[in-house]
Amino acid sequence: MNASPTDPLVLFMPSGKRGRFPVGTPVLDAARQLGVYVESVCGGRATCGRCQIEVQEGNFAKHKIVSSNDHISPRGPKEERYDRVRGLPENRRLSCSATIQGDLVIDVPQDTVVNAQVVRKAASDRIIERDPAIQLCYVEIEEPDMHKPLGDLDRLKIMLGKDWGFDNLLVSQHLIPDVQKILRKGNWGVTAAIHRDLEASRPNIIALWPGLHNEAYGIACDIGSTTIAMHLVSLLSGRIVASSGTSNPQIRFGEDLMSRVSYVMMNPDGREAMTKAVRDAISDLIGKVCAEGGVDPDNILDAVFVGNPIMHHLFLGIDPTELGQAPFALAVSGAVHTWARDIGIKMNYGARIYMLPCIAGHVGADAAGATLSEGPYRQDRMMLLVDVGTNAEIVLGNRARVVAASSPTGPAFEGAEISSGQRAAPGAIERVRIDPATLEPKYRVIGVDKWSDEGGFEEAAKATGVTGICGSAIIEVVAEMYLSGVISEDGVVDGSLAARSPRIIPNGRTFSYLLRDGEPRITVTQNDVRAIQLAKAALYAGVKLLMEKQGVDHVDTIRFAGAFGSFIDPKYAMVLGLIPDCDLAEVKAVGNAAGTGALMALLNREHRREIEREVARIEKIETALEPHFQQLFIDAMALPNKVDPFPKLAAAVKLPPKKLLAEGEAGDGTPRRRSREERAARRTRD
Amino acid sequence: MNASPTDPLVLFMPSGKRGRFPVGTPVLDAARQLGVYVESVCGGRATCGRCQIEVQEGNFAKHKIVSSNDHISPRGPKEERYDRVRGLPENRRLSCSATIQGDLVIDVPQDTVVNAQVVRKAASDRIIERDPAIQLCYVEIEEPDMHKPLGDLDRLKIMLGKDWGFDNLLVSQHLIPDVQKILRKGNWGVTAAIHRDLEASRPNIIALWPGLHNEAYGIACDIGSTTIAMHLVSLLSGRIVASSGTSNPQIRFGEDLMSRVSYVMMNPDGREAMTKAVRDAISDLIGKVCAEGGVDPDNILDAVFVGNPIMHHLFLGIDPTELGQAPFALAVSGAVHTWARDIGIKMNYGARIYMLPCIAGHVGADAAGATLSEGPYRQDRMMLLVDVGTNAEIVLGNRARVVAASSPTGPAFEGAEISSGQRAAPGAIERVRIDPATLEPKYRVIGVDKWSDEGGFEEAAKATGVTGICGSAIIEVVAEMYLSGVISEDGVVDGSLAARSPRIIPNGRTFSYLLRDGEPRITVTQNDVRAIQLAKAALYAGVKLLMEKQGVDHVDTIRFAGAFGSFIDPKYAMVLGLIPDCDLAEVKAVGNAAGTGALMALLNREHRREIEREVARIEKIETALEPHFQQLFIDAMALPNKVDPFPKLAAAVKLPPKKLLAEGEAGDGTPRRRSREERAARRTRD
Repeated sequence: MNASPTDPLVLFMPSGKRGRFPVGTPVLDAARQLGVYVESVCGGRATCGRCQIEVQEGNFAKHKIVSSNDHISPRGPKEERYDRVRGLPENRRLSCSATIQGDLVIDVPQDTVVNAQVVRKAASDRIIERDPAIQLCYVEIEEPDMHKPLGDLDRLKIMLGKDWGFDNLLVSQHLIPDVQKILRKGNWGVTAAIHRDLEASRPNIIALWPGLHNEAYGIACDIGSTTIAMHLVSLLSGRIVASSGTSNPQIRFGEDLMSRVSYVMMNPDGREAMTKAVRDAISDLIGKVCAEGGVDPDNILDAVFVGNPIMHHLFLGIDPTELGQAPFALAVSGAVHTWARDIGIKMNYGARIYMLPCIAGHVGADAAGATLSEGPYRQDRMMLLVDVGTNAEIVLGNRARVVAASSPTGPAFEGAEISSGQRAAPGAIERVRIDPATLEPKYRVIGVDKWSDEGGFEEAAKATGVTGICGSAIIEVVAEMYLSGVISEDGVVDGSLAARSPRIIPNGRTFSYLLRDGEPRITVTQNDVRAIQLAKAALYAGVKLLMEKQGVDHVDTIRFAGAFGSFIDPKYAMVLGLIPDCDLAEVKAVGNAAGTGALMALLNREHRREIEREVARIEKIETALEPHFQQLFIDAMALPNKVDPFPKLAAAVKLPPKKLLAEGEAGDGTPRRRSREERAARRTRD
Repeated sequence: MNASPTDPLVLFMPSGKRGRFPVGTPVLDAARQLGVYVESVCGGRATCGRCQIEVQEGNFAKHKIVSSNDHISPRGPKEERYDRVRGLPENRRLSCSATIQGDLVIDVPQDTVVNAQVVRKAASDRIIERDPAIQLCYVEIEEPDMHKPLGDLDRLKIMLGKDWGFDNLLVSQHLIPDVQKILRKGNWGVTAAIHRDLEASRPNIIALWPGLHNEAYGIACDIGSTTIAMHLVSLLSGRIVASSGTSNPQIRFGEDLMSRVSYVMMNPDGREAMTKAVRDAISDLIGKVCAEGGVDPDNILDAVFVGNPIMHHLFLGIDPTELGQAPFALAVSGAVHTWARDIGIKMNYGARIYMLPCIAGHVGADAAGATLSEGPYRQDRMMLLVDVGTNAEIVLGNRARVVAASSPTGPAFEGAEISSGQRAAPGAIERVRIDPATLEPKYRVIGVDKWSDEGGFEEAAKATGVTGICGSAIIEVVAEMYLSGVISEDGVVDGSLAARSPRIIPNGRTFSYLLRDGEPRITVTQNDVRAIQLAKAALYAGVKLLMEKQGVDHVDTIRFAGAFGSFIDPKYAMVLGLIPDCDLAEVKAVGNAAGTGALMALLNREHRREIEREVARIEKIETALEPHFQQLFIDAMALPNKVDPFPKLAAAVKLPPKKLLAEGEAGDGTPRRRSREERAARRTRD
């Protein structure tokens, strides 16, 4: 039926898709025709309640639509019945029953709103439009007939074709023995779960229930080296039912990735043990989110996983040894589709698993997830996306081109290799300020509300103690030491200041900064500063390499992914020169962007194709193979950088005057200063 | 490259496909372009030897081709090398290396020749053209490269696309953990087994070996209620490596199908026990054929199964209860694709299983296999295909239309319900003749070479004894009793003959025929004759119903499938009226046609599509629902039939004069004779 230009105009939000439809068209049909995904399990019988929509009233001048509840049919008997039995909010309608009577703006509720963790400025909440790989389809099939002796399953397939448009359906073998009982128990009415991720195979019946089955859930999971984070989501409403995390039990085999690879290499059953550990932990975590959300694990039908390459491989049962040595060969880089049961994850027996593709041997499915979440390729501005861990994964690009690399930052940012470093836990210093005049510090401790210079701090801190410096505070304290002149541009602790402050204390041939005198005594040593410099230089050099590949001298916007990014203050990150100069308002922490990407791929199968396509397009840079990397690294050892200007940072933060020192040297002039000026002069000539 | 009309003309046999190709085209390429399936594992490296062909020399006037070995390039260094290493018969060429130099008739050796069991006339051996679902593909993949960090598996897929034309390959999950080791072990040369049965899914890598792997086998298996029969076949050459059979261990749960269904209904774990029994027996039989053929079961990559609906269901783990009662609903009637490992069959872990579709609740995948084998739909003549068991499966049709039914013949044809009946085993009478003058019998016994009237028979029979009458002899003895006048057209033993022969002995109100006096005493009682009449009437009535549906009064050709059909003499079957009148030369036993059909589907995936398409077209007749069936059945109680003439039979066999008796009555005139004459008179008037 072709619509005429005088037919009512209907606009669906948030997709923005629109079209004209004859008066009397059910809203659900209109949505389907436009490719707007509106859930419906019962197939228009007004029993599942999943196809709810809302009319947005008002004059939408931009769209030339005056939308009103008068432009939709009044509630009919089916909707009234549904309201009586299940309850239907006054402003909600069942789109299978409500018909178009005039121009309408229709809101399709999308319950999944991801709150990006925000540092400086409220990012607008992201709405993930739903089109999950799993569809629940209720059908009523014909009873068996001796004259047309098609099997029960075959008639079910025919009806799924007729009512839901599925041709040539596959059926998961495990259902075949049960199909007759289920059909009879449901009195020939059954709900089929159909997996429609076409790249994996043809549409496939993966689960079957008697009668109307109105629940389907999915899992989005980020397998981190340290923490496994999981969302449990309703695939029918998009609602996040529960979110939880657990330690990765592989930690007992090795703290960091490389020690886990070593464990596999040294122990004959090391791979098996680590694979079992992570799979068991995931199954346990599924149990936990299900208990929290009151969901039967048997109703989990789909799962999306992300993780760094080594977690990815161990989860899939692949020996990660090749990832521990050049050329860092991935066993599989493309997306992996499999059955949950084949890898021993406890969900519905027919549940599917999808793993995002890996970008490179050190840039994993987690980076792909973050890329999907932040979408540098969806916009024109040059976006830098960094996920800082023991390996920083770096993605830089825009609509035209995206490049990626990893950089071996080492564990310094996580507090390891730092004399007083510790994990983020109660008692750890998490914020630091140093008075540039007195060089006296103040700090805050996790678990204590007050700053250390406030009255009652010591009392309040008694319970936790003050035990060390966590990763985010390491950044701050070194940056504050630089801003207050305690360390030079080259990161040398200025021993001459010992004369004016008891905080500067000698430590062999070098000096340390005393952050807290007590038990334990917390200092920042010259070695600590060096460790941070090495880590940040590696990260920055990687970023710079990608900027050179892109031919840009600045980035427009920066996204910090990961837990670390959520806690550090972008200002201090920039003062240290972890990241290139940028408008500070454009530096945003996006939390577990990898997990958000997994959630997107779970809720909308088109996002799977999107990230597969984009990962194939991303250019991978192996930092170790770039001859220029070494020089970029050396330049990046300085604070914020030996050669790169930070004009936007300088406008926002008062940077200290240049001061160049050799280790153990006092803050007076040195030959080095001249060489730097010469270099600056050369740059001006270029 | 388009060929010109002056390019050499090449004809491939047995497919008959032909085309013109430029001088210098490798024969393998020409075959591929024409869609002629020529095996090649090594991809043209002249190492696997699978692409052998033969030039047929001579003047093929019909095709206007003079073919000669001078029209193909001489053996090059690659073929010479292959000949040195592996041996290449003088007339054989490797089609990947040999190039076209002139007109050629090329024979693609097809090693699978099925010898149909023949009764009267040699059926020409059937050649199954090969195009199996499994293809072995050797590829050499690029080593990992940090600049292009595609996974090892991803590069393998790319090379399978490049060298073999596979796009968008799936990979069986179980291979993912092994892919890196296999690639390295093969020094980047590996052989992939690709399953290409597109209806099941996209092409799928199901197995992987380092280096060149040059072996791939398949299983074709007919799961009979009594016997499981299996062929082990090379998928690369088509050679049947071993054939074997075993008893179906389900017999311990019940002799016939219905008693097995009852067992499931009465025992809570009955279905599981019977499924396990048949699967274990099949795995054991695989072990047996592999041992016989010297084949590693790990090289079995594909398997095709047929069976009657109850065997089909139990094998797949489906409760067959619904098949035991109207409306005889199949759980699944369409073809079933699954993984061998999912149903616990021991072959390669990635091996696939294909089960032919079922035609109806009583006409199973075995009947579909027989239909594929005999192909009524491939020819114009009206073909009757019967598979006699406790349920006779009947298929009737030609190119235009095929109809099918089952008829409840009961176990009489198998020797059950017969007073002296027994299974075919040493000591069982298998052949019988009765002298019409003396009414004296002679017979042969399984395990003894002589007829009973030959000298030394008793001596020879001492080892086995003479223990009973097997199924095929039951047909003969009743037919001979009819031909010799011992029984009437209505099957009544003529008691009046007791006066002239001691072979006719009273037995209560009726009479028996004494076949052998001894221990045991072997007689054919009136009840035995009645049992055979009931069985043959059921079969004939089913056949007749299908003939009526087709609107034909005779059939052109008859195929007896199954073991029973191989042993009975079609003449006697027709004398009894099991089958309709037909030229005796056109009645053929085709042995295990169901198994032959499985073999065809194993060796050529197009045969799978063919039988799926044809089964969907076959019209199923439920005999129990046809009001006319009862009358047809009553008419068919007579020998050969009350109403149907048997002119062709009468021309070949001297049929006895009509004689009508009531049970226990002497052979004189009765009122019945008149009524029959009246009926005959009415037929003449119509």
